[in-house]
Amino acid sequence: MTPTLTPHTIARIEDSFRAQGLMRHLGVEMAAIRPAEVTLRLPFHPDLTQQMGYFHAGATTALADSAGGYAALTLFPEGCDVLTTEFKLNLLNPAEGDCLEATGRVVKAGRTLTVCQVDVHAVSGVARAHVATGLQTLICVQGRAPT
Amino acid sequence: MTPTLTPHTIARIEDSFRAQGLMRHLGVEMAAIRPAEVTLRLPFHPDLTQQMGYFHAGATTALADSAGGYAALTLFPEGCDVLTTEFKLNLLNPAEGDCLEATGRVVKAGRTLTVCQVDVHAVSGVARAHVATGLQTLICVQGRAPT
Amino acid sequence: MTPTLTPHTIARIEDSFRAQGLMRHLGVEMAAIRPAEVTLRLPFHPDLTQQMGYFHAGATTALADSAGGYAALTLFPEGCDVLTTEFKLNLLNPAEGDCLEATGRVVKAGRTLTVCQVDVHAVSGVARAHVATGLQTLICVQGRAPT
Amino acid sequence: MTPTLTPHTIARIEDSFRAQGLMRHLGVEMAAIRPAEVTLRLPFHPDLTQQMGYFHAGATTALADSAGGYAALTLFPEGCDVLTTEFKLNLLNPAEGDCLEATGRVVKAGRTLTVCQVDVHAVSGVARAHVATGLQTLICVQGRAPT
Repeated sequence: MTPTLTPHTIARIEDSFRAQGLMRHLGVEMAAIRPAEVTLRLPFHPDLTQQMGYFHAGATTALADSAGGYAALTLFPEGCDVLTTEFKLNLLNPAEGDCLEATGRVVKAGRTLTVCQVDVHAVSGVARAHVATGLQTLICVQGRAPT
Repeated sequence: MTPTLTPHTIARIEDSFRAQGLMRHLGVEMAAIRPAEVTLRLPFHPDLTQQMGYFHAGATTALADSAGGYAALTLFPEGCDVLTTEFKLNLLNPAEGDCLEATGRVVKAGRTLTVCQVDVHAVSGVARAHVATGLQTLICVQGRAPT
Repeated sequence: MTPTLTPHTIARIEDSFRAQGLMRHLGVEMAAIRPAEVTLRLPFHPDLTQQMGYFHAGATTALADSAGGYAALTLFPEGCDVLTTEFKLNLLNPAEGDCLEATGRVVKAGRTLTVCQVDVHAVSGVARAHVATGLQTLICVQGRAPT
Repeated sequence: MTPTLTPHTIARIEDSFRAQGLMRHLGVEMAAIRPAEVTLRLPFHPDLTQQMGYFHAGATTALADSAGGYAALTLFPEGCDVLTTEFKLNLLNPAEGDCLEATGRVVKAGRTLTVCQVDVHAVSGVARAHVATGLQTLICVQGRAPT
């Protein structure tokens, strides 16, 4: 992969991230941007829970999906956008802790399709638990979604 | 499957739904509860968008995951709760419209594991577009999550 | 979808099927070709088993993958070929019986990507058991695989 | 995970592998058994191809599924058997080469459910290409499959 990201690419990803209403509404923070790898963080809040008080699988998935999408976007040419075409997540352990951290990593960067691995950890102080692992296929689009 | 649901079972599902912070925070409404099949509705709001203004894949997934989970719960014995063990969603069309409707249907009801099919449509007036289809495995738990 | 298939399209699919060494080696038969829907059949043989004597999940998957691929191919333009980009299968019941029947159906036909639902039944005389359901993404290629 | 495998556990896995008709029929070889990690190898043969002459996705999947299943079995107690409950594979590159090597690794070992990551490489002399990555959920059973 490319060795470093330009400030321009980082700004492009941060702009896209700020344009996502859902990320702001859930309270997701950008934690790290590297070539082909992005980490997002989601602090716990009662607005994010399922019926037992854990993070809802939907919150875990929204976080993981965005981490993978931005990992792919670090490799896309200027003027291209990213859409998820499919997503699969295995929930390994109950998602409880101070925050969730999701890292997306590009496994295969293609001209049309990019495949990412995503992993989510629950962090409580210094303890980290692996709560989810998944795979995601993303498509590189110019402007609107292709048919 | 069982022919009808008792008012007690319906109340149990509505109680669980109201206990999910994320469903309330996103604005999800319970649209229909039938044996082995539940439909949830999510009206559009800018808080739910990705960078192009469509519903975020994370919102689509959270909705679909909950619809499948509650479809499974309609068949579970009293005192049991439901957890998603894995989830896969194919995003078929851009998720834009007045609201999303997700229906979860039980495909296989097992003692330990239940498999649901989930489908999400975007609704704009009378127009309906199929925006996502998925499969989900759920586990029946007594109290806390099993290891 | 298109209302009927031309004899030319049916011949094109049968030629492709006969060119697959694995289908012949496993003993798979073409059972039905319709627009956007193909059914394949696999008679039981001890060469197809896992350690308990059921059909091996790998045989079930090979059958399901091909059924979905040919369902997609019925809709592709002349000169195009089909490759699976990803595949997900839930195994619902033990795969035992006289034969397996897999049907692939196109859920979304796109210019680049096509999504199929696949279902596998085990058939024993008149009894049919639903042994697997899955989702598959296929890509339309001209000649060799794209990068 | 456990630091080493006993000769008894290795023999148990080799016995199970030899009992799989499909593995013998395809020509799969056991390459390495370690705690929570198993590698299988499949030499190229025209009986394993799809219509373009690559390894068929069904062969890739059968190999990957078995590698993950045996990785899980290394951790199961005596008298227990393993069944795949669901499987997802992303096909990253055309599967062409002298042989395929699939490695399954346990990501989460639970009492009921075990999750494995599986990776398949195509090997041609010293060249290795990453042709598939996947996730798999397995269930530990005593005797026949549970409902």
